[in-house]
Amino acid sequence: MVMNVRGYAAHSVDSPLGLFSFLRRDPRPTDVVIEILYGGVCHSDIHNVRNDWGNARHPMVPGHEIVGRVTHVGDAVGRFKVGDHVGVGCMVDSCQHCAPCGAGLEQYCENGNTLTYNDVDPHDGMTTYGGYSETIVVSEKFVVKVPDGLDLAGAAPLLCAGITTWSPLRHWQVGPGSKVAVVGLGGLGHMALKLAKAMGAEVTLFSRSPGKEDDARRLGADRVVISTDKAQMKAVRNTFDLIVDTVPYVHDLNPYVATLGLSGTLVTVGYLGGLEDQLNTAPLVLGRKAVAGSVIGGIAEAQEMLDFCGQHGITADIEKIDIQEINDAWERMLKSDVKYRFVIDLASLKREAEHAEG
Amino acid sequence: MVMNVRGYAAHSVDSPLGLFSFLRRDPRPTDVVIEILYGGVCHSDIHNVRNDWGNARHPMVPGHEIVGRVTHVGDAVGRFKVGDHVGVGCMVDSCQHCAPCGAGLEQYCENGNTLTYNDVDPHDGMTTYGGYSETIVVSEKFVVKVPDGLDLAGAAPLLCAGITTWSPLRHWQVGPGSKVAVVGLGGLGHMALKLAKAMGAEVTLFSRSPGKEDDARRLGADRVVISTDKAQMKAVRNTFDLIVDTVPYVHDLNPYVATLGLSGTLVTVGYLGGLEDQLNTAPLVLGRKAVAGSVIGGIAEAQEMLDFCGQHGITADIEKIDIQEINDAWERMLKSDVKYRFVIDLASLKREAEHAEG
Ligand SMILES: [Zn+2]
Ligand SMILES: [Zn+2]
Ligand SMILES: [Zn+2]
Ligand SMILES: [Zn+2]
Repeated sequence: MVMNVRGYAAHSVDSPLGLFSFLRRDPRPTDVVIEILYGGVCHSDIHNVRNDWGNARHPMVPGHEIVGRVTHVGDAVGRFKVGDHVGVGCMVDSCQHCAPCGAGLEQYCENGNTLTYNDVDPHDGMTTYGGYSETIVVSEKFVVKVPDGLDLAGAAPLLCAGITTWSPLRHWQVGPGSKVAVVGLGGLGHMALKLAKAMGAEVTLFSRSPGKEDDARRLGADRVVISTDKAQMKAVRNTFDLIVDTVPYVHDLNPYVATLGLSGTLVTVGYLGGLEDQLNTAPLVLGRKAVAGSVIGGIAEAQEMLDFCGQHGITADIEKIDIQEINDAWERMLKSDVKYRFVIDLASLKREAEHAEG
Repeated sequence: MVMNVRGYAAHSVDSPLGLFSFLRRDPRPTDVVIEILYGGVCHSDIHNVRNDWGNARHPMVPGHEIVGRVTHVGDAVGRFKVGDHVGVGCMVDSCQHCAPCGAGLEQYCENGNTLTYNDVDPHDGMTTYGGYSETIVVSEKFVVKVPDGLDLAGAAPLLCAGITTWSPLRHWQVGPGSKVAVVGLGGLGHMALKLAKAMGAEVTLFSRSPGKEDDARRLGADRVVISTDKAQMKAVRNTFDLIVDTVPYVHDLNPYVATLGLSGTLVTVGYLGGLEDQLNTAPLVLGRKAVAGSVIGGIAEAQEMLDFCGQHGITADIEKIDIQEINDAWERMLKSDVKYRFVIDLASLKREAEHAEG
């Protein structure tokens, strides 16, 4: 038994996204069925469709920043009931028995977690399809609650951009008095500013170009440093406890390492690949500094982050779009022309789908 | 008032070391005067004399692994008395008022610590001369006690090789059950094996060539992995909590990063410079791994390490030499022909000096 679901899919690396019908599994006893209300649009959606990481499976329904309403719960589901507002992020399953899974770090599952889209469910062999769709079926272990009072559309990007920056901020123990810097002001960067500020840190934004001061300060930055200005960079030498580097392309880390304080860490969450500029170990050795990485976050961490956002009234700054605008939105994202996240209002999909059938 | 002291100095980058007379300050009220009994021979002694780091001051008396006997204490000295066995490492002073100094991390003093040799004492402008000499005058804050029962000659290398490996093992919280790997089996590497094992870790040595198994196991390794053997490297993928990389020349870190477990750290203590092989951030991101550095250790840490070595009966494996053999010893070190540290018996200097005068 399976259910028919409508979404937006890309049928090849270079085809635009359009209406697509596909199958979701019939809910298992441990499953939650979610009517998707809002779906955030992440850069990795574009990377995946365009096969930038070499593992694209088309047709692909992207989307891993999902907020919706529970419409059905399986008999074994204990934590959710029909009507709850819930979220789903980048993962929909993991092995549940390796050490990382046991520690609530499903993002580092040793046996390979199941991604929300562009993956295969090992239980039934079905392709996973993401949040650019009307309905999703997810094991309750991978569903989180959206706290009351949070704007649902603005909460959607918390499921990827939020948790991706929250996890390193927590792992490296940011708190009151911490000196945190953020490299890059996009979907991830603007969440890093908001979260670090709310955690009590003194927050700096590194930006390659001027003109972002007002926005950065509004989002939580105490200071903006223009990274191409040598005097400004020199003024913050040996300063930061943690730098969250959200830049998604190769760049030279050495100028940022110079601004780390003693025992500080630069954590990259955006770029996967070789560092073309030689990383210099001398400042690492002479200042006990580290260059590290981090990817998304675990499910318990995601719930903790959402609860924190509920307490502090934090959501993403978004531009709401209809799903019919998605191809234009992707073009604008490639030009960094969004402040700071597109979120699809899935009511637009329902209208189109009903019209197509009517 | 100053005192005349004899030692071995290099007068230029390419001249052999030979007998040299120089001045030490008259002890201040906070100073300890130490008759040097043993002086360890560190690779950085060669680097400094040969100006590999561009800051050589000749004539230079190297040596920063010093063990001796207190022969005089200033009026304000409280922790030492004549006859005590003490050690001096890489530093003889620091600003004492910056944050790292306040935290007992004088090795990271923000205002520049004073190195044991090849440096200038900011108080009196005198050149500092190291442990290849008969006597040294040091502020008591930079003197540590050598626990009773430790072989004094074998304890000398603890002051640099010991503390350089101890500090990262402690900072990254190695203890019972930790999985630690060591890259390189020289002066630093052999101490890292001994210390990590005594701390309760499961210890692995990475070696480029076979034939070191017996020695490595005797020193504390539970396992030896030949780093040029792909199957052996694959067998330890995603394993280690901490890798202490003691290799003093540029090398590719990526194969070692692959052997770090989740949230593991590779800390380099040997090489300062650019990484010619592109460091790949993907394994860092996907495993929350880090590449870090560390240099020597603080004075309180050094005392803690010596006390630990006293409790566990740990000293370096040494080859004792007369100071007249130092130039040959350096040649052998450049061929890695020493197990695992040369230590100068300074009685040999006294004999030569008395003969020269007699
Ligand atoms: Zn994402
Ligand atoms: Zn797992
Ligand atoms: Zn040394
Ligand atoms: Zn200081």
